[in-house]
Amino acid sequence: MIVNMSEAATEEQINHIIDRVREAGYQPHVTRGTTRTIVAAVGSGRRHEIEALRVAPGVEDVVQIAQPFKLVSRQVKPHRSVIDVGGVKIGDDAVVVIAGPCSVESREQLFSTAHAVKKAGASMLRGGAYKPRTSPYDFQGLGVEALKILREAREETGLPIVTEVMSTEDVDLICEHADMLQVGARNMQNFALLRRLATIEKPVLLKRGPSATVKEWLLAAEYLLSGGNHDVVLCERGIKTFETETRNTMDLAAVALARELSHLPVIADPSHGTGRQSLIAAVSRAAIAVGADGLIVEVHPCPERALSDGVQSLDFAQFEQVMQGVSEPLRKIARPRMEEVVLRAQA
Amino acid sequence: MIVNMSEAATEEQINHIIDRVREAGYQPHVTRGTTRTIVAAVGSGRRHEIEALRVAPGVEDVVQIAQPFKLVSRQVKPHRSVIDVGGVKIGDDAVVVIAGPCSVESREQLFSTAHAVKKAGASMLRGGAYKPRTSPYDFQGLGVEALKILREAREETGLPIVTEVMSTEDVDLICEHADMLQVGARNMQNFALLRRLATIEKPVLLKRGPSATVKEWLLAAEYLLSGGNHDVVLCERGIKTFETETRNTMDLAAVALARELSHLPVIADPSHGTGRQSLIAAVSRAAIAVGADGLIVEVHPCPERALSDGVQSLDFAQFEQVMQGVSEPLRKIARPRMEEVVLRAQA
Amino acid sequence: MIVNMSEAATEEQINHIIDRVREAGYQPHVTRGTTRTIVAAVGSGRRHEIEALRVAPGVEDVVQIAQPFKLVSRQVKPHRSVIDVGGVKIGDDAVVVIAGPCSVESREQLFSTAHAVKKAGASMLRGGAYKPRTSPYDFQGLGVEALKILREAREETGLPIVTEVMSTEDVDLICEHADMLQVGARNMQNFALLRRLATIEKPVLLKRGPSATVKEWLLAAEYLLSGGNHDVVLCERGIKTFETETRNTMDLAAVALARELSHLPVIADPSHGTGRQSLIAAVSRAAIAVGADGLIVEVHPCPERALSDGVQSLDFAQFEQVMQGVSEPLRKIARPRMEEVVLRAQA
Amino acid sequence: MIVNMSEAATEEQINHIIDRVREAGYQPHVTRGTTRTIVAAVGSGRRHEIEALRVAPGVEDVVQIAQPFKLVSRQVKPHRSVIDVGGVKIGDDAVVVIAGPCSVESREQLFSTAHAVKKAGASMLRGGAYKPRTSPYDFQGLGVEALKILREAREETGLPIVTEVMSTEDVDLICEHADMLQVGARNMQNFALLRRLATIEKPVLLKRGPSATVKEWLLAAEYLLSGGNHDVVLCERGIKTFETETRNTMDLAAVALARELSHLPVIADPSHGTGRQSLIAAVSRAAIAVGADGLIVEVHPCPERALSDGVQSLDFAQFEQVMQGVSEPLRKIARPRMEEVVLRAQA
Repeated sequence: MIVNMSEAATEEQINHIIDRVREAGYQPHVTRGTTRTIVAAVGSGRRHEIEALRVAPGVEDVVQIAQPFKLVSRQVKPHRSVIDVGGVKIGDDAVVVIAGPCSVESREQLFSTAHAVKKAGASMLRGGAYKPRTSPYDFQGLGVEALKILREAREETGLPIVTEVMSTEDVDLICEHADMLQVGARNMQNFALLRRLATIEKPVLLKRGPSATVKEWLLAAEYLLSGGNHDVVLCERGIKTFETETRNTMDLAAVALARELSHLPVIADPSHGTGRQSLIAAVSRAAIAVGADGLIVEVHPCPERALSDGVQSLDFAQFEQVMQGVSEPLRKIARPRMEEVVLRAQA
Repeated sequence: MIVNMSEAATEEQINHIIDRVREAGYQPHVTRGTTRTIVAAVGSGRRHEIEALRVAPGVEDVVQIAQPFKLVSRQVKPHRSVIDVGGVKIGDDAVVVIAGPCSVESREQLFSTAHAVKKAGASMLRGGAYKPRTSPYDFQGLGVEALKILREAREETGLPIVTEVMSTEDVDLICEHADMLQVGARNMQNFALLRRLATIEKPVLLKRGPSATVKEWLLAAEYLLSGGNHDVVLCERGIKTFETETRNTMDLAAVALARELSHLPVIADPSHGTGRQSLIAAVSRAAIAVGADGLIVEVHPCPERALSDGVQSLDFAQFEQVMQGVSEPLRKIARPRMEEVVLRAQA
Repeated sequence: MIVNMSEAATEEQINHIIDRVREAGYQPHVTRGTTRTIVAAVGSGRRHEIEALRVAPGVEDVVQIAQPFKLVSRQVKPHRSVIDVGGVKIGDDAVVVIAGPCSVESREQLFSTAHAVKKAGASMLRGGAYKPRTSPYDFQGLGVEALKILREAREETGLPIVTEVMSTEDVDLICEHADMLQVGARNMQNFALLRRLATIEKPVLLKRGPSATVKEWLLAAEYLLSGGNHDVVLCERGIKTFETETRNTMDLAAVALARELSHLPVIADPSHGTGRQSLIAAVSRAAIAVGADGLIVEVHPCPERALSDGVQSLDFAQFEQVMQGVSEPLRKIARPRMEEVVLRAQA
Repeated sequence: MIVNMSEAATEEQINHIIDRVREAGYQPHVTRGTTRTIVAAVGSGRRHEIEALRVAPGVEDVVQIAQPFKLVSRQVKPHRSVIDVGGVKIGDDAVVVIAGPCSVESREQLFSTAHAVKKAGASMLRGGAYKPRTSPYDFQGLGVEALKILREAREETGLPIVTEVMSTEDVDLICEHADMLQVGARNMQNFALLRRLATIEKPVLLKRGPSATVKEWLLAAEYLLSGGNHDVVLCERGIKTFETETRNTMDLAAVALARELSHLPVIADPSHGTGRQSLIAAVSRAAIAVGADGLIVEVHPCPERALSDGVQSLDFAQFEQVMQGVSEPLRKIARPRMEEVVLRAQA
C-alpha cells in the first residue's frame, strides 16, 4: 500500500501519516520526490486503516499494490485445478460442454433434451428449477418437481446435473439432487449464499456478475475457498455495456485473464453472453480458442415455445452444429497452444 | 407486443406467426408495409410466447410496447405514496435525511454519531450490522450485537433505524430490531430475499443495483408490492460506468425518471454514489434539486479510522455543512417546482 | 511514477529497472517490502519510458502518481477562470443560460426562438450550422447560410452566438460569424481540430466525449491551453452507459469534480444529457445546485416538427418554466454554498 | 416506424398523429388494442418527422423497425466484399495479419520490424505517422518523415502500408504514401473526415469507436459508401466498460455480428482491445475463431523502450508465437465452419 501525499502536504501531515501507518501494523517507508512525498506501508497490517487514510489531511490518494485475493491466486497454487463433477473433470485437457434447457418445463422436455445433447457430445446437463426472473410475473420454475426430474434424467443418461441455487434455504435440498450448484450472475455478490456454499461438499459454478470486474469475481470465489470449498468453476457470461444489439457483451479476454490470475477452471456461457441464437456458434468457437475449459449452452426442443430464454436457446440440430464447430481438431489445436505461448518475456 | 417480420419473410412464415399469436391468447393484427409486414399481438395473453417468436423463421425482432411493471406504476396509482417509518414520513413534503456510520463498530461510535446527526437535523439513523464486503478478509459487521446497539440508539435518540438485510435467514431477527430493512445494491435482484421481504410488515429501502436499469429496479420493487408489501422506498446510489475517478456514477436523472414512472418515494445516496468525501455536499444539493424525497449519508466520528467506507464518510462538522446546504430554503424552492413544472405539453 | 515489482522478481530484474529509471532521467528510490519491492522514479524525466516498463521482466504494474494535466489544473491556477464571450461572462457569479435550436432551419425559426429565449432570460444563443449526424441520410445543417442567419440574430437580439465546428477547414469561416466555437462530444479527441482551435482568438466550448473520463476531458482542454488558447469552457453532456431509458447518463458529479480539479468554468447540457423532454427541468435545477456555471438547452418553436433532436427540445413555454426553476433565488442559495463548503478537513 | 400511443391518449391526439404521419409522406395504419393504440407509418417518407412525434401529446414512444443503414447491409449486397489493398485481399479466404509498431520512431526501428513481421507471416505493415495522443505532452508522431520511411519500407519488403489519418488536411499527403488509410477509434464519428475519405481512391480501415454501438459503427461506414468509397474494412478494437484490468473490453461477438449484418470485411485489433501483452495471443486466436477476416497487431523491437503503447506491443519472438497460434490449421478449421453453420432455422 502506498500513501501518495499531495504536493501541498505539510511536514506535520506527513508525520501524521507515518504514525498512522505504524499504528496500523506496517512499517512506514518514506520517499521524498521533488514535488511530492510518498509513504509506503511495508509488511502486513490492517489494510482498511491504510485505505481510509485517503481522507486524511494532505493525502491525495492511496494505491494498493498487492492483489487482494489469495487462495484463488496462481501465486499461491501455480498448477491448474481440476474439478470433478460426478465423474466429469473440468479444467483437464478435454473441453467440457454442459447443455440443457434454461428451465425444466416438463419430464418430456428435459428427457428429450438430455438424450439429444448427450448424443451430440455434451458431458453434463443443465436445467433450472428455481429461476431468477427480472419480473415477478414471469415463470419462476417448477422447484422441487424440477429437481426430481433432473435427478431421474441423470439416472437415465448418466450426465451429471448442474442447477441454480437462489437462496440459502434451498441449499440442502438441491445438494441432495444435483451434482453441482450454480450461483447465478445476479447472486455473485450474495455473500450470505456464498458463505453457505463454502460449507457444502458439492462443487460450485460461479457466474460472473453483469457488472463485476474480474477482481470482484475472483474475490467472490475467494469467499468459497476461504470458507472451505475448493471445488469452484468460474463462468464468464457477459457483462453489461452500452451495446444493445446483444443482451450482454461477452468478455472473452476475461476468460484468458481469469486463467492467468487464478488456478480455477473457467468456462463460458455464450447463450447469456450474446442473447442471440445466431451468434452462439461463433462465440462458442472463440471461447474455446481463448482458452475456456468448457461451455454451458441453452438447448430446447422448440426454442420458440420455451417458457424462458427462448431467444437464446438452440434447437437440437443447431446444438449439433455448435458441437461440430468446437470439435476435437479445434480443441487439439487451440488448447496446447494455451500453455505453450508464454508471452511474458523470461529474463 | 409487435412481431416485426424480416423483409424476406414468406407468406407461410407470416401465417405461422399469426397462428402462434392466436395460440398465445392474443388477437393478431397485421400491417403490411411496402417492404415488410408487422404482426401486432392485441389483448392479453402469454407474453413470453410472443417474446420467443424472435427466433421463429422470418422474424427480425419482437418489440414490447407496454411497460412491464404494474403496481409500482403511476398509471395504476397516480398519487405519490408516503411511507411511514417509525413516525417519519418519506415521500411527503419534507426532505428526509438518514445518516449514520457505514458499520456499527461500537456502542460509543454509534451513540456519538446518532447524537451528532440528530443535532444537525437528520431524522433517521443508519448503521450496518451485516456488511456485504467484496473481500472475505474485510470486516463483516458485528451482527446481532450491532442490532442491539442500534435499538438502544433509537430508544435514546428517538431516531428510527434502517439497517441492511443480506439473507432470508436474518429477516425475522432484524425485523425485531429495525424500523426499516435495507436491500443492498448487490442484492437488488436477490429474488428469494425480495419474496421474503414482501411478506413482512416493515418498510423496505430498495437500493438500485450497480448495473440495473431503471426498469429492472422498478421490477425488483414490483416483487415486493405484488407479494403484499407496499411500503417501499427506492434509493439511487450510483451505477457502474467506465469513469474511475468516482466510485460509481450518480445517475440523478434516474431519480426524476423513477418519480415520473412510479408513485414510490425515491431517495439518493451520495456517499456510495460518489465514493469521494469532497463531492458529497454538491451531489446532495443536486439530489434534492432533482426531486429526491430524501438522502442517506454515511457519517463517522473519525472517517480515517472507520472499519469500512472511511473514504466516503463525513465527520460531524462536514455533515453539518451538508445539512446547511440542503436546508429549508433550498428544499422549499426546489420541491414545489417539481410538481408544478409539467413539461409534457398538454394538448 | 512507481514501478511495482512482482513477488517473484529477481535481483537482476530489479537492477535492470533501477538502471532504466535512471536512463529515463529520474532518480530511482527503492523500497523493499516483506514480499515485494517497489522502485519510485523521483524527479522529472521521460514518463513514457517508465510506463513502458510494465512489460519488462519481473514488473507487475506501473502506477502513475501525479495528475497528467498541468495548465488546466487548480494546482497551477487556484483562482477560477472567467471567460468573456461577447460580453457575457461565464464562470462568474451569475449562472449563464445558452439556448436555441439544435439546428438552424430557417431565418424565421431562429429569430422567433432567439426572441423567445432572450425574453425568458437566456444570455446566449446556440444553433447548429454544421451538424454531426449518426446517419449520412439525416439533415446535415444549412452550413454558411446558417452562419449568416446566426450573425443577423445576434445583431438583432444582442445575444452572443455559439455554434459547432466539425472540421479544421471551417474554423476561419466560423470565427468570422460566431462568438464562441463548440467542439462536439464526438470530436472531443479530434486532436487536429483541438490544435487548430488552440491558435484562434475566440473562446471554445469543449463538450465531454460520451466515453471520456474526467481526466481525458481535462487533457483535451490541456491541448487548447498548451497551444495558447486559455478561453475554454467545459460542458458535461452525459456519458454512455447501459441505461437505455435516457439517451445518455448525465454525470452531474463530474461537474463538481471538474470544478474541483480545474479552474475552468463548467456548464451542463441537460438536453443531450437526458434526451427526454420531461426530465430537462429537473436536471437543469440539479446542474445548478451541483455547481454548474451555466446551462445549454435546446429550444424549438415546435419540437415535433424539428429537423433534428425534436425529442429533447423544449417549446417556448416549457423553456420559460425551466428558467423559472433555475431562477435567481435558487442560484443565490446554491452558488455561494459551493465555495463555502470546503469538505476536505483542514488539519 | 411505429408510434405507440399512451393508454390515456385521446381520440383527438390519435387523429393528430394520423395526420402528421400522412404529412410526413407515409401511410398511417392504425391498430387499436384493448388498452392502447398504435399507429404504423407505412411506405417511405421523412423519418425524422416521425421520430420527433415522440414529444407530441398522447405519444408514449416511437419505435424504429427497419435498420438505418443501407449500402453496408447484407440485405442490399448478400455476397461478402473483398477489399484489395496493394495486392493483398482482405475478406477472402486467407486471414490477413497486419503488424508493425504503434509509431514510426526511426528508419531502423521500422525496417527491422518490417522484416521481422514479414518473416513471421504478416502480409501488411502498420505504423503511425500522426498519433492521436490523450495528452498534448506525449509523443505526437514524426509526421511526413514517418510517411517517407513507411514508403521506403514498402519498397524494400513489398508489404502494403496502412497508417492513420487524423485530419482532412493530411488526406492528400497520406494518399501519396500509404496503401490504406486508417480512421482511428476516436475519429469514428469525425464526419468531416469521413466525408473527405469517401472521395479518395484508397481503401479505408474504419476502427470502431470506444463507445460506438455496432449500428453506429456501420452508419459511420455508410458515410464512406454513400459518398462513393466502397473499399472499407471494419476493425473491432475494444469498447470502454467498467472493467479496468484490460485497457478496453474486446467485443468479439461484435465481429460476428458485424459480419452478419454487413458484407464488409471485419478485422480485430487485440493490442488495443486488451492493452495487455500477455492476453494478445489468446485473443488473437479467439478473433480468428469468431470469424475475423484478419488481425492488426502492434510489434516493436523492444516494447519497453517504445515511444507509445509499449505495454501492449509484442517483441519479435512473441509475435512469431502469436502467428503460430493463428496459423494455417486453425484458420482452416475455423473459417469454413463460419459460413456453414447457419444457425437460424430454415422453415
